[in-house]
Amino acid sequence: MRILIVGGDAAGMSAASQIRRRQPSWAVEVFEAGQRTSYALCGTPYYLGGVVREIDQLVTLTPEQFARERGIPVHTGHLVTAVNPARKSITVKDLATGQSRDEAYDRLLLATGAEALMPTGLEPGPAGLFYLRSLDDAENIRRAMGKAKSAVVVGAGYIGLEVAENMVEAGLEVTLLGRQPAPIFEEELQALAAQALSRPGLTFRSMTDAVGLSPAPSGGLTVAVSQGEAVPAAVGVVGAGVRPRAELAAAAGLTLGVKQAISVDRFQKTSDPFIYAAGDCAESYHRLSGAQTWVALALGANRQGRVAGFNLCDEPEEFPGILGTSIMKIFGLALARTGLGLEEARRAGFPEAVKTVVKQHSKPGYYPGSTPVTVIIIADRATGRLLGGQMGGTLEGVGQRINTLAAALSTNMTVKEASGLDTAYAPPFAPVHDPVVIACEVAAKNLKG
Amino acid sequence: MRILIVGGDAAGMSAASQIRRRQPSWAVEVFEAGQRTSYALCGTPYYLGGVVREIDQLVTLTPEQFARERGIPVHTGHLVTAVNPARKSITVKDLATGQSRDEAYDRLLLATGAEALMPTGLEPGPAGLFYLRSLDDAENIRRAMGKAKSAVVVGAGYIGLEVAENMVEAGLEVTLLGRQPAPIFEEELQALAAQALSRPGLTFRSMTDAVGLSPAPSGGLTVAVSQGEAVPAAVGVVGAGVRPRAELAAAAGLTLGVKQAISVDRFQKTSDPFIYAAGDCAESYHRLSGAQTWVALALGANRQGRVAGFNLCDEPEEFPGILGTSIMKIFGLALARTGLGLEEARRAGFPEAVKTVVKQHSKPGYYPGSTPVTVIIIADRATGRLLGGQMGGTLEGVGQRINTLAAALSTNMTVKEASGLDTAYAPPFAPVHDPVVIACEVAAKNLKG
Repeated sequence: MRILIVGGDAAGMSAASQIRRRQPSWAVEVFEAGQRTSYALCGTPYYLGGVVREIDQLVTLTPEQFARERGIPVHTGHLVTAVNPARKSITVKDLATGQSRDEAYDRLLLATGAEALMPTGLEPGPAGLFYLRSLDDAENIRRAMGKAKSAVVVGAGYIGLEVAENMVEAGLEVTLLGRQPAPIFEEELQALAAQALSRPGLTFRSMTDAVGLSPAPSGGLTVAVSQGEAVPAAVGVVGAGVRPRAELAAAAGLTLGVKQAISVDRFQKTSDPFIYAAGDCAESYHRLSGAQTWVALALGANRQGRVAGFNLCDEPEEFPGILGTSIMKIFGLALARTGLGLEEARRAGFPEAVKTVVKQHSKPGYYPGSTPVTVIIIADRATGRLLGGQMGGTLEGVGQRINTLAAALSTNMTVKEASGLDTAYAPPFAPVHDPVVIACEVAAKNLKG
Repeated sequence: MRILIVGGDAAGMSAASQIRRRQPSWAVEVFEAGQRTSYALCGTPYYLGGVVREIDQLVTLTPEQFARERGIPVHTGHLVTAVNPARKSITVKDLATGQSRDEAYDRLLLATGAEALMPTGLEPGPAGLFYLRSLDDAENIRRAMGKAKSAVVVGAGYIGLEVAENMVEAGLEVTLLGRQPAPIFEEELQALAAQALSRPGLTFRSMTDAVGLSPAPSGGLTVAVSQGEAVPAAVGVVGAGVRPRAELAAAAGLTLGVKQAISVDRFQKTSDPFIYAAGDCAESYHRLSGAQTWVALALGANRQGRVAGFNLCDEPEEFPGILGTSIMKIFGLALARTGLGLEEARRAGFPEAVKTVVKQHSKPGYYPGSTPVTVIIIADRATGRLLGGQMGGTLEGVGQRINTLAAALSTNMTVKEASGLDTAYAPPFAPVHDPVVIACEVAAKNLKG
């Protein structure tokens, strides 16, 4: 049995490791266009700010370690240019020699990841303009930051906000362009994000799109915007979102699904019985809506790779699905979410979704360090079911709290049931009635009203 | 309709508030032997250490506030000396005048709380010996600490550990006597507790019982111990545990249950159809074992009071039950638990309970401030079910993390299901695979082995 894997990041290497463990005698080989495997892309913004000092700290395992310690050969610098389902082979180009060859598989895993969206007018090219999708990108940006005093960041989602924060911490004067700050959160939390962005060294221009760019006369670049004056800066980073990298799959005739991601079942199998897909290139099952969706989040990618590894070894294993749980830091503010937002819920088949917003404290008022926590609950009036939760507050106040709701959502609890959770209480940690519990209590009342 | 409530702390006042809200025209009156209502006993150790500056900060609502703001009369200084179910009355003694009278009820709630266990030889009496069961006790101890240089604390459970910590922080030389430190945790976490207790200003004498005490020649007291030298100290605090205060109920012929707590159903009804009980004096339904149990924890007491309030107003409401979730701080160490420990599980009808211990990090290794977290999972080999979880680590590492497991336990998840929880990931908060998720993965493997 020979299993080939296209892509050497989270999903691909998780699968490879499982296959090696479960079927030590089978051949498994990985083809990766870049030079690195298995790295923490989510850590790169913190490398820009110097919080992470060395880029190599972000590499979990190198290709050499995979080969030596796990017996998994990784062909780096090898770009897969075609999948040939009829012949059960892939066409591989060795980027060092320029030579192409075919490699035959019995089973194939596509783990090609996601790629940056590049809005019209913001294509890479000009000196000083960057996208952040690899450790190489991170090194190039940090190098450019060394001589820079100013930066422009396009996009106020996860990447844009984290990059802007870290550039401010590194001492640059930063202009951040976007519609709303942290748009995947409810508006009450977007307001907290806007407050956190209001600080020296940072100018957030909301409701502002970048529409073009040109080299600046004095060096660096100038970003043309949809309203107001153009923004000059020494360095520019675009964080406009990502999309699944599914061209190979599409060209091979595989079915694409949500947002043009590779369509898979919960066993990570594609429309071809010998081809699996996992990670950011593939769809994910959403536990709440019960529908396929597409999100690019690290835990899901790792898990899909693992699940694919089991199934590629004929051990049936089902992907548990995602809730879209995520968390981010914006200076001293933490924002977190799990499950569906209000509009998402209404679109996902819960027309009677109701939003409840409460503001509570992270600890009893008498204990030092108690901070406000805003908790938002999305619940279904028709069934009483908890559909989603979001939180904003200090890093400590929000940090792990969101996972209480993620766990509650995993089992289709009603908000009434969630209001009865037996949470931990002691003054240094939480109030008797945790903010999560109170928010669910209020939500349960709101459903009746 | 006239509803009387015996006891003005968490359970009693929660019930009174619900009754007032649901049936504004009904008479509801509270009888409380002390002078205070609704206060945070769990905050008192931090008053000893000066973390909480004023004792009044620990009072949520005073009797005057209940009367004025909520229309609930509270008779403080009134000791209930008998319940007369046949006449549907209670006998009340006004402690100020010494006069007794009968008060008739249509329905009665007993919320008499718990009282300190007083081991033989350690009865209160000698100057300098204290129990910590009220705000008055806390004020007396803090006053005694003012002139003291040394203290002895008897008992290494929650109260003993928190009192010892706060006395050390206040500058006293403290000797702590006990069997194991933090005995309600698994031994791996007891070892962490022992480490945390090994510090200047504190001597922990393990496997040592206090067996008697006498006034010291130089003032203060001397505690005789089961092994080694007697301990002299200026101040002594005994934290030997608590028991339900159920004498009134017993004398009235109500059925007692686990640990002589008042037997109740999930609607908080006692064996008398007109009498309810709630809080530390009553049994609690354990969500996992399905059996009645007895624990004295603040959240459960508040909730039982609330549930009793509904039922006293003829609105059926079921107590959701407890998991025994709790958390404590020992200097920089946090210990937390939910559900059943290994031995508890075996005794509670899960003879095939298996323990898994993992040590993980609170954040990715490359992000500053990542700290070790020990996670213990108790799971049932017969069914795969998650039965309990315990954790030890830094305050931030453990703080809210235990509630993820509490939520998972609430819905009878298997460890395999819990290993698929969609937890939040970002470098400043958690690793891709949260310690909880990894612990459940390892536990699922262990069940197969």
